[in-house]
Parts: sequence; C-alpha cells; structure tokens
Amino acid sequence: MLTPMTLEIGMLLFPQLTQLDLTGPHEVLARMPDARVHLVAKKLDPVISETGMAIVPTTTFAELPAPDVLFVPGGYGQIAATDDAETLAWVRAAGDSAKWVTSACTGSLLLGAAGLLRGYRATTHWAFHDLLPLVGAIPVDERIVTDRNRITGAGVTAGIEAALAIAAAVSGRDVAEQIQLQIEYDPAPPFGAGHPRVATAALVEQMRARVAPRHAERLAQLSRTS
Amino acid sequence: MLTPMTLEIGMLLFPQLTQLDLTGPHEVLARMPDARVHLVAKKLDPVISETGMAIVPTTTFAELPAPDVLFVPGGYGQIAATDDAETLAWVRAAGDSAKWVTSACTGSLLLGAAGLLRGYRATTHWAFHDLLPLVGAIPVDERIVTDRNRITGAGVTAGIEAALAIAAAVSGRDVAEQIQLQIEYDPAPPFGAGHPRVATAALVEQMRARVAPRHAERLAQLSRTS
Repeated sequence: MLTPMTLEIGMLLFPQLTQLDLTGPHEVLARMPDARVHLVAKKLDPVISETGMAIVPTTTFAELPAPDVLFVPGGYGQIAATDDAETLAWVRAAGDSAKWVTSACTGSLLLGAAGLLRGYRATTHWAFHDLLPLVGAIPVDERIVTDRNRITGAGVTAGIEAALAIAAAVSGRDVAEQIQLQIEYDPAPPFGAGHPRVATAALVEQMRARVAPRHAERLAQLSRTS
Repeated sequence: MLTPMTLEIGMLLFPQLTQLDLTGPHEVLARMPDARVHLVAKKLDPVISETGMAIVPTTTFAELPAPDVLFVPGGYGQIAATDDAETLAWVRAAGDSAKWVTSACTGSLLLGAAGLLRGYRATTHWAFHDLLPLVGAIPVDERIVTDRNRITGAGVTAGIEAALAIAAAVSGRDVAEQIQLQIEYDPAPPFGAGHPRVATAALVEQMRARVAPRHAERLAQLSRTS
C-alpha cells in the first residue's frame, strides 16, 4: 500500500511584505488535505509586515530547498527581497523544481526577477501591472491567471482567489469549494472601489500618485536586473 | 491648536484563532489615517492560529484596557477564550468603554458571551448563526451587520468587508474606498460555493457534519454561561 504523499507548500516570508497577500492564501492552502504549509525565511526570527504585524517563520531556506508548491507574496519589501541574492536564489531554485509556482500581488514581480515568468501569462497588483513585461511575462488583466504550472493573483485580496484556484488545481474542485464554504467566501463588498475599472477617476489618480515613488523604484530595479 | 487624536484599535489574539478573521481586518484597519492597531493578548508570546501560523502580540490586556475600537476574531479557540475569565473580563471592559465594538466570524459569540450584544442585531459564521440568540443577539443573515456602535461580520472573509465598514464609519467613505482600491478588493471568486445559499446541498450537509462537534461544544458552553 502506498503512503499518501504530503504536499509541501513553501510560502516565502520577507520583511515589509503585505501580510494579507500571504495570510489570505495561507488560510486556504492550510485547509487542503495532505498538505503541509511552511512559512519560509532566511532565519526563524519574526518577520514584520508593512503594517507592523510580526509573523514567525516555520522553516529556513536551507531546510526546504524544493517545495512542491512555491508561493510568493508582494508588498514594498519585495524590492529589497529581489535585491537580496540569497532570497532570489532560493526563489529561483524552488521555482525551477516546484510542481506549482504561484504568487499574489507584486509577488509575481519577484518570481519574474528570478526568471520564472519568461513567456508566461501573469498578473499582479493593478498599480504595477505595466511592469510585468520587464520580467518577460505577458500581462493579463484578470484576478487569477493560470498558465501551465504558474498561477498568479492580482492585488492583495486576489490572493484568496488564487489560492482557491491552486487548491482546485492540486486537489480538485470539490476540495476548493469545501474550503470556500468554510471561509464563507461569498463576497459582497460594501463599496465598489476595488479596481480602477470601477473606482472614480479621482480616486485612481490619487492612488497612482501615492504609489508613484514605489513604482519608480521597481521600474528602476527591474530595468537594471532584466 | 488641537493635536489630532490617534485612534487606538485593539484586536484580540487568542490561541487557535482563525488567523484570516484577524489578518484580513488588520490589513484594512492598519491603513486608516491616525489609527494605531494593537494585537492584544494576555502575554506577548507568539499566538498560534488553528492552521499553525504564529503571530506576535504587540500589547497586553493590562497595557490597553480601553481601546477606541475593539475587534474580536473567531475560530475554534474562541471557546477556550470564552472560558478564560481574564480574556472575557478584558473583552467586557474594553467593549463597555469602546466607541466601536466589532468582530468577524464567531468572534461575535465571544462578544455576546461578554454580554456586549444583548438586544443588538448581529451576524456570525453561517454554521453557528443559530447560536446568536443564546447570547441575546438578534440574528441577521448578512455579511455585515451594523447596529448602533456594534459592527459584526459573517464568516472569515466577511471580516475584510466588516473592516471596510468600520473604516467608513470611523474615517468616512472616502478613506474606506481608498483602502479598498489599495487592497484591490474587487472580488471574483473562481467558484460559487461560499454560502449555503449558493453551495450544493451535499456540500452544505458535509460541512455541517464536520462542524457538528464544535457546534455542540459551543451550544453547551453558551447555554451554561447565558
């Protein structure tokens, strides 16, 4: 009799991540049967998110060189993570051997900087979507983009949806629907401002102005490294 | 000239919480201007969620007896938290003095056990909705229920929506819409199984059977304490 294989899921943690990029998918992926979720970082010290939440890693890069599923979140700290040779090398090697290579938000730019999205259709946070071609990806303006074994989600909350798509791809749609019902993901936002398509032009302009310095920083970085 | 007041937001952490009940709202509330979010627990040791994520508290009960906004998440550990006299006393006192008393998922049952929902309209996770009358609340089957200064969210992911409603109530709709656009909350779930209203009868039955022991445990607890 064969022992059921445990799926090893490696979720990258780095300082100044957007915690919901990670915690949303974590709540979904950790509910998959026969899966073990690892929060992977350089060291086991707590990692502080952009908004000040400290999350404790469970596993170091050295302990999990080859997860079955690689997941990368986004956030401002993704720029420094991309500049960090050790982090980039882990992402590249883990992505090369993983069955599934996945991300939420600007995590796809880190996957891309590691060379993992060349020639793949992908998405990212709406405010950074125009940067995808700099890493050789084909930008698609959708909440979830699946291309072969790459599954990328759009900004922050789209990570929950990307994780449901990962659960369906790995364990079947029944499992994904069970998890969706458990986490009562039957959204009804109180306002309709979650995407430039539906927000007012003034609000979109204000947000673009606010992220402009970060956008410029990433543009410079990706132009340098690609 | 008056100094702008900082809004002190106290989010309760307890062992075996459902982390997304807390992390979703945290990502929203931490983006409010002039607000400071505290992760409040008995001690400052990391608190482990139901799915194994360790989050580090920032503040003890003693350090924050009277937050302006009280937020309580749910999860299996909510039963033990309700049985813990120190936790229940903090919730009761904080709720009595807070400007806003809020929750996601079964967090409302903890608010209720502390006597904070008597005569208030409220919601909770669909599988535990029938327990609300045991704490004197008036059950409403909606994603977000606002009654005077009580704002309760339905299961897990509804916490993101409840937090947008809190941001709007406290800081105005413009601020809530800015945050919604930042976190790209423009949901498009890949499947339509997030509520008993839309899931198949077989799936709902399966989930009810799975949570039956927890439901019975909570029913017994709330019957005892109310």
